[in-house]
Amino acid sequence: MKPSGVITITTDFGHKGPFAGVMKGVILSRFPGASIVDLAHDIPAHWPPEAGFWISRSYTYFPQGTVHVAIVDPGVGTDREIIIFEHDGHTFMAPDNGLLAPLLNLSDDDDLYHLDPDKLAHLGLAPPSLTFHGRDIFAPIAAEIAAGKLSVADIGKPTTDWTPGWLDDPEVIAGKIHGVIVTIDAFGNLISNIDAALLEPMQTPTVSLAGHSFQLSATYGHVQPGEYLALINSFGVLEIARAEGSAAEGLGGDRGAPVLVTDKG
Amino acid sequence: MKPSGVITITTDFGHKGPFAGVMKGVILSRFPGASIVDLAHDIPAHWPPEAGFWISRSYTYFPQGTVHVAIVDPGVGTDREIIIFEHDGHTFMAPDNGLLAPLLNLSDDDDLYHLDPDKLAHLGLAPPSLTFHGRDIFAPIAAEIAAGKLSVADIGKPTTDWTPGWLDDPEVIAGKIHGVIVTIDAFGNLISNIDAALLEPMQTPTVSLAGHSFQLSATYGHVQPGEYLALINSFGVLEIARAEGSAAEGLGGDRGAPVLVTDKG
Amino acid sequence: MKPSGVITITTDFGHKGPFAGVMKGVILSRFPGASIVDLAHDIPAHWPPEAGFWISRSYTYFPQGTVHVAIVDPGVGTDREIIIFEHDGHTFMAPDNGLLAPLLNLSDDDDLYHLDPDKLAHLGLAPPSLTFHGRDIFAPIAAEIAAGKLSVADIGKPTTDWTPGWLDDPEVIAGKIHGVIVTIDAFGNLISNIDAALLEPMQTPTVSLAGHSFQLSATYGHVQPGEYLALINSFGVLEIARAEGSAAEGLGGDRGAPVLVTDKG
Repeated sequence: MKPSGVITITTDFGHKGPFAGVMKGVILSRFPGASIVDLAHDIPAHWPPEAGFWISRSYTYFPQGTVHVAIVDPGVGTDREIIIFEHDGHTFMAPDNGLLAPLLNLSDDDDLYHLDPDKLAHLGLAPPSLTFHGRDIFAPIAAEIAAGKLSVADIGKPTTDWTPGWLDDPEVIAGKIHGVIVTIDAFGNLISNIDAALLEPMQTPTVSLAGHSFQLSATYGHVQPGEYLALINSFGVLEIARAEGSAAEGLGGDRGAPVLVTDKG
Repeated sequence: MKPSGVITITTDFGHKGPFAGVMKGVILSRFPGASIVDLAHDIPAHWPPEAGFWISRSYTYFPQGTVHVAIVDPGVGTDREIIIFEHDGHTFMAPDNGLLAPLLNLSDDDDLYHLDPDKLAHLGLAPPSLTFHGRDIFAPIAAEIAAGKLSVADIGKPTTDWTPGWLDDPEVIAGKIHGVIVTIDAFGNLISNIDAALLEPMQTPTVSLAGHSFQLSATYGHVQPGEYLALINSFGVLEIARAEGSAAEGLGGDRGAPVLVTDKG
Repeated sequence: MKPSGVITITTDFGHKGPFAGVMKGVILSRFPGASIVDLAHDIPAHWPPEAGFWISRSYTYFPQGTVHVAIVDPGVGTDREIIIFEHDGHTFMAPDNGLLAPLLNLSDDDDLYHLDPDKLAHLGLAPPSLTFHGRDIFAPIAAEIAAGKLSVADIGKPTTDWTPGWLDDPEVIAGKIHGVIVTIDAFGNLISNIDAALLEPMQTPTVSLAGHSFQLSATYGHVQPGEYLALINSFGVLEIARAEGSAAEGLGGDRGAPVLVTDKG
């Protein structure tokens, strides 16, 4: 893989304190030419699935050869593994806690590695803290890979074993699609894990959430301000929105809320 | 215009999710050397005037040849136009919804363009989503302009027609200045749209807001902690502040609150 | 000092408005190759000690030759000095209000300077505003130093006089360590100013905060979700945490809360 020099960082650190900043310091210490992009730092604390959802839906917008690092890591310092793999021209690295399941589902098992502590000696890492592997392990390794000085195979032990995701994939049962809300954006749009492809066989999909039903529209501006709508959003998944308002506030829906799509034919 | 390689991004996305991040990914995919600066992402949802206010008051602090992109875009995916123009050595790009009115007021109409979809074929854009033109249209075009590979005229159709701003400009009526609060900073300082120049003819300007009156001071440290003051702030506009406190909390003023300046002579 | 080209920015601006953004614009105008890293912008308004704590605990993760700028500056525009010095291969710059005391305690007084306005003429600075020296003084000077075009001695007057810190250093009295909570991270972990070295002589340190006592653990994952623990965190100081929860919410502790460590032997 030819590296692009770009590294993305996704965490549950919030925009508080120097935690993402010191990761960038470590990266720039090893790879002064790195282009570092904050993908998202507002993942709910200790909840990996949202990080994996956003990375799986976002990575294609970055140059081939980008390294994507995700730190939502309640097991830091225990014996949990770190998973690292290449997929579709990009490199991904995260705690092996289900975070990257949406991509691992798609990946060829031949390319999966757990980080092998025995292969890191030549990197000159300081002994890692027990509580901040983002800074002490992920950042320096991402820097070396992004700089083209290290390959995934150099530091990994092949594995076919990885922790499955925390959320069920959407299911189609008797012609109805069952999914869940995965995240909420700053506008209060409720974003589900239901891919657009699942709705394609339907003639008149009707979306149900929290006791309300919605018809599909193409975009926010096609309904009146204050009206609710369902739409396939720009990341290719079903979203429930309120034009110039907050669907999350208006409907009370939250992460994990079930979404049902039926075909009114 | 000789590009500086710098692109600023102003949005109402909040610091949530990967929305600004994927815009940066798109930019870096086309222009790996871009320097991307987040100007502000906390513009109130769907309220363009604050974005335009900050851009018009901030752009001069960036190098000549910077591209400023603003995405506060409730009409995304409808037939609203995208406006793009050069002014004072910088390039500006936003939905044509009044956002950039503070700069368009100052600009030479000869330099204004609406983005012409028929001129974009050679850019190899993917078909844009209906809900995220920031990523699908603004980011790639900003990247090409900032890289010096595209000029505004290459992709625009000349226009003299643009949507006016949502806020009235300050007015001077019978020697009194009438303005409004445009934004509130993290300290709770209430920032108005009244330019310092309007106060120059006055001998002893007195500022009124929400039933209170304030005298002008030079800086926060010139009054006692807890005291209110009015001042010309570092962006050249009238601000109501509270030393080491929050004027917004103390006074209850908010965006849109009227501000009156009278001359006690 | 050989500059790394990296500049960190720490402020109490919050993630609101264009304040950090325009500082970056000023830096890039003078030093297009700068790598600018946001260290922290969520320092409580007008409270310098937290900024100094994080900088003193974070700077070593950046390359030698990095310039660290901190703006928590309630006295901006008054006659407060600006302090600037090199320490351990890094350059630090902040209002002389106690912010950098944790580093000044360690520094050789021979290397301390107050910024000398009489030495700035050749820099071509615009007359500074009275309220935003971050943009008008700190940013351009940091850019020149980071670009290797300016040394600290070029623009400073030597001084041995600096404002002490706002927080007492931890004290050991009769074998008990007395410290305070300095900051709270996004997880609600309560972070004290008690360095790990102070606990080393103890056999079974017991940590008391807000009427509760805690034993030391190595990492969050070593106790059950919901349980409290004390640990030496990744920045080398004592922290009170709750596994997969918020100690700040659960215990009600806040900045400034006293922390006591006794040895149960």
